[in-house]
Amino acid sequence: MEHNLSKHISGKFNQDLENVRNHVLAMGGLVEQQLNSALDAVSANDSEQARQVEKDDYKVNAMEVSIDEECTRIIAKRQPAASDLRLVVAIAKTIADLERIGDEARRIAQVALDSFSKEQQDLLVMIDNMGRQVSKMLHDVLDAFARMDVEAAFKVHKEDAKVDREYEALIRQIMTYMMEDPRSIPKIMALVWSVRSLERIGDRCQNIAEYVIYFVKGKDIRHISQEDIEKDILKL
Amino acid sequence: MEHNLSKHISGKFNQDLENVRNHVLAMGGLVEQQLNSALDAVSANDSEQARQVEKDDYKVNAMEVSIDEECTRIIAKRQPAASDLRLVVAIAKTIADLERIGDEARRIAQVALDSFSKEQQDLLVMIDNMGRQVSKMLHDVLDAFARMDVEAAFKVHKEDAKVDREYEALIRQIMTYMMEDPRSIPKIMALVWSVRSLERIGDRCQNIAEYVIYFVKGKDIRHISQEDIEKDILKL
Repeated sequence: MEHNLSKHISGKFNQDLENVRNHVLAMGGLVEQQLNSALDAVSANDSEQARQVEKDDYKVNAMEVSIDEECTRIIAKRQPAASDLRLVVAIAKTIADLERIGDEARRIAQVALDSFSKEQQDLLVMIDNMGRQVSKMLHDVLDAFARMDVEAAFKVHKEDAKVDREYEALIRQIMTYMMEDPRSIPKIMALVWSVRSLERIGDRCQNIAEYVIYFVKGKDIRHISQEDIEKDILKL
Repeated sequence: MEHNLSKHISGKFNQDLENVRNHVLAMGGLVEQQLNSALDAVSANDSEQARQVEKDDYKVNAMEVSIDEECTRIIAKRQPAASDLRLVVAIAKTIADLERIGDEARRIAQVALDSFSKEQQDLLVMIDNMGRQVSKMLHDVLDAFARMDVEAAFKVHKEDAKVDREYEALIRQIMTYMMEDPRSIPKIMALVWSVRSLERIGDRCQNIAEYVIYFVKGKDIRHISQEDIEKDILKL
């Protein structure tokens, strides 16, 4: 069920809102690229690429600040009505989460600056699997945002539970590894942080899914159970 | 240097903005109480109190949702001009950080559900010290927010570097402990998460300090060095 965005946009706004929406999608694309680069750097143990992710984070930050200003300007200049205002609010919140996802990608890339033994590599492979799953979640929620598709957004929302289970399992694996080889703890701790970062990215994708539903349905669904969202708000 | 809030508030807004501001302060007070309760629960190993923190988190969430709606309603109804709009934006961002601080307090309280050996208690004492430092930071930034005092806000902003150093030191201590007693790793991991939560709360207090400066000075200071903030924006 794709939402007809243009119907929601009153005449003279069109251009401003269309512009800011495109900027969000560009920012989303950059953040997705940063996450994938970070994952690539880790799995290839490529410190060069890791440093590039670190270096490019300023671009994500600059985009957030500039889109944020754009949102404030639109509100001040255009005095938007209900649904337009909801779009601006949804955008302002989305870019805040995107910026934090960029930060997490930067943290994940750090892992590539260290080198790992053959046994430790097994953990890296598992982290990469979880990473690709989270990256797909980010891709899907940006897609749902682009089309303002509540069903697609809700699918991502539900996906987060899988990521959380993956996270629990991976942390258990990492702890077992630490117990078997305590000297490796300081090095392995970096993997703990990167797994945590991936879990946090999942949460933030879930947040963005909530903003899409908020915009389309006009309901703030944070802190509401998925069952109730499905029944009362999406009426699926 | 206290900021004269009322000068910034145009006539008919007064009541709406005053109300929402009071709601933010009430929410801040509740979050502060949740954090202190969580720390008390951990240091007294009081599982009852920990469950109370968990249980009361819904109040924080409900306040965020309701203040968020209030902000949207003010913008839609009042069409605020520049400085009023900045206040609403600063408030909307502040409550998002406060809600996340509430989540972290809930996570920290979990530590009280487990019991620790005498040696492990030493780590708990260190965590409590860091916790009280962070709690003071939260108190101070809420105070800066209440008075819209940029200098006080900037002081909190600088305080975060200390919390980060404390965090690094504590994580090193915890890793040493894990290396010496690998069987304790699953239990000690809970301490790692609580120290991480405290560090995150420090970051969020720093965010709130940035919103205070944004409101008063009209400048977005995220991603700007403290040196430049001091020189170019606060002109101290």
